[in-house]
Amino acid sequence: MKLLSQSAFRTTRDVSDQITDRGTRGLLQAGYIRQEIAGAYSFLPMGLRTLTNIANIVREEMNAIGAEELLLTALGSKEHWTATGRWDGLDVLFRLNEDGERPYALNASHEEILTPLLAEFINSYRHLEQTIGLYQIQTKFRNEPRAKSGILRGREFLMKDLYSFSRDQAALDVFFEEARKAYVRVFDRIGLGEKTHYTFASGGTFSKYSYEFQTELEIGEDIIHICENCGQSHNEEIVEKNFKCVECGHEKARTTKASEVGNIFKLGTKFSDAFSLKYRDETGMDHPVVMGCYGIGVSRCMGVVAEFFADERWLRFPESIAPYTDYLLVQGDHMDWAKSLAGNLEAEWRSVLVDDRDARFGEKIADAELFGMPNIYILSDTAKASDMPEVRRRFGA
Amino acid sequence: MKLLSQSAFRTTRDVSDQITDRGTRGLLQAGYIRQEIAGAYSFLPMGLRTLTNIANIVREEMNAIGAEELLLTALGSKEHWTATGRWDGLDVLFRLNEDGERPYALNASHEEILTPLLAEFINSYRHLEQTIGLYQIQTKFRNEPRAKSGILRGREFLMKDLYSFSRDQAALDVFFEEARKAYVRVFDRIGLGEKTHYTFASGGTFSKYSYEFQTELEIGEDIIHICENCGQSHNEEIVEKNFKCVECGHEKARTTKASEVGNIFKLGTKFSDAFSLKYRDETGMDHPVVMGCYGIGVSRCMGVVAEFFADERWLRFPESIAPYTDYLLVQGDHMDWAKSLAGNLEAEWRSVLVDDRDARFGEKIADAELFGMPNIYILSDTAKASDMPEVRRRFGA
Repeated sequence: MKLLSQSAFRTTRDVSDQITDRGTRGLLQAGYIRQEIAGAYSFLPMGLRTLTNIANIVREEMNAIGAEELLLTALGSKEHWTATGRWDGLDVLFRLNEDGERPYALNASHEEILTPLLAEFINSYRHLEQTIGLYQIQTKFRNEPRAKSGILRGREFLMKDLYSFSRDQAALDVFFEEARKAYVRVFDRIGLGEKTHYTFASGGTFSKYSYEFQTELEIGEDIIHICENCGQSHNEEIVEKNFKCVECGHEKARTTKASEVGNIFKLGTKFSDAFSLKYRDETGMDHPVVMGCYGIGVSRCMGVVAEFFADERWLRFPESIAPYTDYLLVQGDHMDWAKSLAGNLEAEWRSVLVDDRDARFGEKIADAELFGMPNIYILSDTAKASDMPEVRRRFGA
Repeated sequence: MKLLSQSAFRTTRDVSDQITDRGTRGLLQAGYIRQEIAGAYSFLPMGLRTLTNIANIVREEMNAIGAEELLLTALGSKEHWTATGRWDGLDVLFRLNEDGERPYALNASHEEILTPLLAEFINSYRHLEQTIGLYQIQTKFRNEPRAKSGILRGREFLMKDLYSFSRDQAALDVFFEEARKAYVRVFDRIGLGEKTHYTFASGGTFSKYSYEFQTELEIGEDIIHICENCGQSHNEEIVEKNFKCVECGHEKARTTKASEVGNIFKLGTKFSDAFSLKYRDETGMDHPVVMGCYGIGVSRCMGVVAEFFADERWLRFPESIAPYTDYLLVQGDHMDWAKSLAGNLEAEWRSVLVDDRDARFGEKIADAELFGMPNIYILSDTAKASDMPEVRRRFGA
């Protein structure tokens, strides 16, 4: 049970008029996030709880497909980034001490770190009897020329990146499908499932397409075309003048704006070639390891959820990721009741925020709705008379 | 229950002879960590579990004194670092795009980020009726000219930093004592308590002394003098030619090498002055907020624990932070037995690693001892005959 009166932070209306996205505005007004530089946001306690809840769902689903969690460095060696040509070739790469004694990259992605690291551990077919999946949940840095306001596209953001290492394309394909299903479960669990589409997008160096998870969103940066026959989604970047579904050949699509919440790539041998990551097969022949990579923008997901569910009363978080599942608005001398109710709720593994502030009801209910906790319990004299708190559910009964 | 056969990582003996510290060598040989650049280490799965266990103990003790957790940015604005003179004044500060369009710091500490952020939330005595404590567990960056091998002193490391905001010195003193006690509990819980000393060190700008927590360690970088009368510890930097205890005046001390695992500072108004963080009192007068800061090197603690407990058999972690409390060494056809035992142990909230590899006993027990799990259960034919696994406890019975 957390007492709101004990928090150092407060809601505010004093947010720049230039910020019009309802989600970002809500996160700022509710005191979930604060900007340090354009594109880099601090997460205040309620924001961090939300972010952590999303990260934990991602973690559970990665563990469920047998991936192991690790934590790679944020600083990367120039040598590793040079080996793939991305020290100079990746526009958004932050470079430190570029002309000095110890030049480092601030890692924008981790193929360059993990691939050479694994060369020590993979060298025989025996190490690849099953595909190896390794992931981390870590801060990434990208020197974006234009950062979008809020946490949708930043220079510093929290990402889950999973990398897979297989002996051949067939094994990659099997793992890739497992990872795809895990992504579907993640987006379901954070509440975006129905409106999130597995989308064909322009390919990397190795395969014809890459694959994105796009959530329908008015303020999204992407446009997707969803086949009216089979439902397959296509990023506009691969759609010709006249739409034709790559899956079923149908020629009519619904078009909508969307925000990319995840992407998965078959990397093939691009990175294993660069770092000589190979294995010897049963006959003594060497082969490059076949890789995949799989990203989810964890902080971006939080921004998308905020925007996606915001209603006229403001933020609205599903129970799975809300900082607290239950908000107890105490009006009058009812703290004993609140403690008892909180105890019952916590016994069912729910989390409780108690608004014990000495303030008017109007102010407290407005804050409660701004914060976006899915269930609001009002403990007032009227409610006490019937011994039943008034319950307002932001997602309906 | 984790099966060792399912991990991508292995132990190795192939570690540079130049690394002689037993702890660092053990962490490398056991596959807990890998170096990316000098001073920046990736944490492989078992290393990350250890690190996370330490972080969670720190988190619990911070929450217990009413501090709120948040997550500040790694990128900091030049403006904020310039306001305190540390953009140019802090040698170890990493600066990005220094001569370019968007100059940022890579935060080495977070007074410069949190103090201006709080100016929005603190402006009245009503906001400081109790001291505000805010902390994060986050990666810090310092461009150290010389990085020590291993995770004892790095350019990138995990730190818990707590900041306190009080209305006056008396309120700071009260919180400071609470924080000091929380630190004692942290070091007790991670196993370092008995040999960790609260140490007077040279002061900052505001108070005569600063305060360090120093763990006795042969490879430590510091030297401490422990009063033979009252036990007060002094960093050598404040000891005159002839020792005299600052606490009791006694003139004899025991001298030993030590490693700093935490420090706590009374900052006073240095940062609140720089960022105009002030509050109006009951009479309408403005006062600067009185601050404190409190650091624990979480990744350094892991390095210190590794070094501190290593014995002739190698790593040795207390149950509170070991990646797994119990190591089941399965020799022969005893996986059913292992699963049943693991189930019983996990029902008591213990964590279990099962060595199900097809390898010789000698290799498996050597790995078990290298890994450092505190309890090793050997499930062999001999043990099965008596229906009792052989138990080897690294910390005695």
